[in-house]
Amino acid sequence: MKIDGTPYRSVWVDEQDGWSVRLIDQTRLPWALDILRLTDVAGVAHAIRSMQVRGAPLIGAVAAYGLCLAVRRDAGSAAMERDAAMLAETRPTAINLRWAIERMLTRLRNTREADRVVAAYDEAAAIADEDADQCAAIGRHGAPLIAEIAERTGRRVNVLTHCNAGWLATVDWGTALAPIYTAFERGIDLHVWVDETRPRNQGAALTAYELGKHGVAHTVIADNAGGHMMQHGDVDLVLVGTDRVTRIGDVANKIGTYLKALAARDNDVPFWVAVPSSTIDWTTSDGLRDIPIEERATTEVTTMTGRALDGTITTIRVVPTGSAAANPAFDVTPARLVSGLVTERGLCAASEAGLLTLFPERAAVAG
Amino acid sequence: MKIDGTPYRSVWVDEQDGWSVRLIDQTRLPWALDILRLTDVAGVAHAIRSMQVRGAPLIGAVAAYGLCLAVRRDAGSAAMERDAAMLAETRPTAINLRWAIERMLTRLRNTREADRVVAAYDEAAAIADEDADQCAAIGRHGAPLIAEIAERTGRRVNVLTHCNAGWLATVDWGTALAPIYTAFERGIDLHVWVDETRPRNQGAALTAYELGKHGVAHTVIADNAGGHMMQHGDVDLVLVGTDRVTRIGDVANKIGTYLKALAARDNDVPFWVAVPSSTIDWTTSDGLRDIPIEERATTEVTTMTGRALDGTITTIRVVPTGSAAANPAFDVTPARLVSGLVTERGLCAASEAGLLTLFPERAAVAG
Repeated sequence: MKIDGTPYRSVWVDEQDGWSVRLIDQTRLPWALDILRLTDVAGVAHAIRSMQVRGAPLIGAVAAYGLCLAVRRDAGSAAMERDAAMLAETRPTAINLRWAIERMLTRLRNTREADRVVAAYDEAAAIADEDADQCAAIGRHGAPLIAEIAERTGRRVNVLTHCNAGWLATVDWGTALAPIYTAFERGIDLHVWVDETRPRNQGAALTAYELGKHGVAHTVIADNAGGHMMQHGDVDLVLVGTDRVTRIGDVANKIGTYLKALAARDNDVPFWVAVPSSTIDWTTSDGLRDIPIEERATTEVTTMTGRALDGTITTIRVVPTGSAAANPAFDVTPARLVSGLVTERGLCAASEAGLLTLFPERAAVAG
Repeated sequence: MKIDGTPYRSVWVDEQDGWSVRLIDQTRLPWALDILRLTDVAGVAHAIRSMQVRGAPLIGAVAAYGLCLAVRRDAGSAAMERDAAMLAETRPTAINLRWAIERMLTRLRNTREADRVVAAYDEAAAIADEDADQCAAIGRHGAPLIAEIAERTGRRVNVLTHCNAGWLATVDWGTALAPIYTAFERGIDLHVWVDETRPRNQGAALTAYELGKHGVAHTVIADNAGGHMMQHGDVDLVLVGTDRVTRIGDVANKIGTYLKALAARDNDVPFWVAVPSSTIDWTTSDGLRDIPIEERATTEVTTMTGRALDGTITTIRVVPTGSAAANPAFDVTPARLVSGLVTERGLCAASEAGLLTLFPERAAVAG
């Protein structure tokens, strides 16, 4: 997608500059667009660990490029396996991270040492391109949800989203934002309500940034406001991403998603979830029972970071020092509250039967 | 209630110090306990306007004391009426403010000029004492809701609250927090989940402060977290205040209250609203249709204030400069989602019939 008219991906290789890996440093957004130039695997590991890159699909692609830099330095099997294990430890809960590393290792273990560098860059590029293609397909399948409302109502369509499931969380396009970008490119008049998404503020900091830089009309609201907006007819569609979908369609996503799903149901607003098939966990059913919810550092709740009047990026404490805090990072929206899923293969109901219409090869696992 | 063991009210008169009016400066909380000493009506007007005091019941009592200071300087009718009008303009939407000023004027207009100072302090004290008594009664009537859960479960009771409806919003005790303080004083083991309450953070800044200083166990959570807490059985009771209740029991309260009511209903968690009778608007029925929702400054969403590492109180921007923001301050929770109301006269259903059982003198208006 674009930043002020210039096309970007969230990770790319600079072939003219020693095949270095380039990343947008997301810890600096929205206040500065800093492009990192990484030349060794340790730098890549640091970028993942420190959340300079985040978003499950993006982390996988970045780790793949990390292995490219690793084998450039030492293509021997011992070093390669050691570096791969080190990368896999950077974010213990990220499923795509381990999936991408395994895919890279499968290819490289079957490649002669002398050919590993070329093979690594080839495989990493394939992973990145496939992610971008998958997201673009989600965009194509989801855009008609927006177009249909525009046609039916004859006015601007208001979409509400939570957290950041945009191109900054993937290689390009995003998941929940892909249908929005696709509809925008097709000239459909739309506007996005952006939930701030406390405690880490990915909505205010990243979604608002990327929509703004691409030119999509949007308004940031407190996480508390969405229900009121829906009561007054100001939301036509809720569209969110997900960190894990179970085989029966329960949706784990950023904390607070469940509250918006409840409000959507109470006000007859469609609630759709964009999900690349790699995010479907076919081994779990009841999301509330089976999906462990990560408890993150309470400093995410007790503090907030932004730009002070003097321009410096400053962290302030917003909770009294004597008060405890708790920080569950995700919640589970039961499938009964989900209008449907947008996958790279098309739309389906949030149910086992619905998912199997698009992924019939998974039916065997059900038995 | 108490701060570190010392009893406080949120407003009081210092008879030993020229009958000056004392207030806790709430814009400095939770980082500093600054007691203001006000000696003229202009200072009182500034305190209300700048939100050094907030909370509908407290504003009314403070305005009453403002008139005391006014008539101390000039007890003539012209000056008194002028000062009263000036006070009434400080917060255009506060119902209690105008109610308290009218009550003061009714008394003072019927008092000889020479006796007005004494009469003013007497009437203001009556307003403050009645507010404290009303809140204490809400505490007595509401505490059994908590006690019953403690008895039934035999374990610590978890109460979730939103915004600040504590003693800092009233003269003493609070509304939603009154039953919590009363149960706490009776030795019931309880713990409060405190919603941060973006955008103004009254939960994190004020509710956490007053509970902590009084010694009540509590944990601050993002506004997004309450639904997840309820799904997992971690909330036994939701208890909130209100800015206006309609005659059929619809509840206007701080933005985000409606989302918690939906989650409570979805998880069979009781959702109670504490309401002094002065907050019941007998002239409105359908809250969604009839209650105008104040849109506040968007800077409340785009910025956040807290304590920087160097100890200075700092405001930071948390939304990209190019992004719009919207800031509806309240939402309406339909009566169908409210388990019941706690008033100074007792408990009742959130319905016209329920309210009329406690306030039969209002039945005539229904005709």
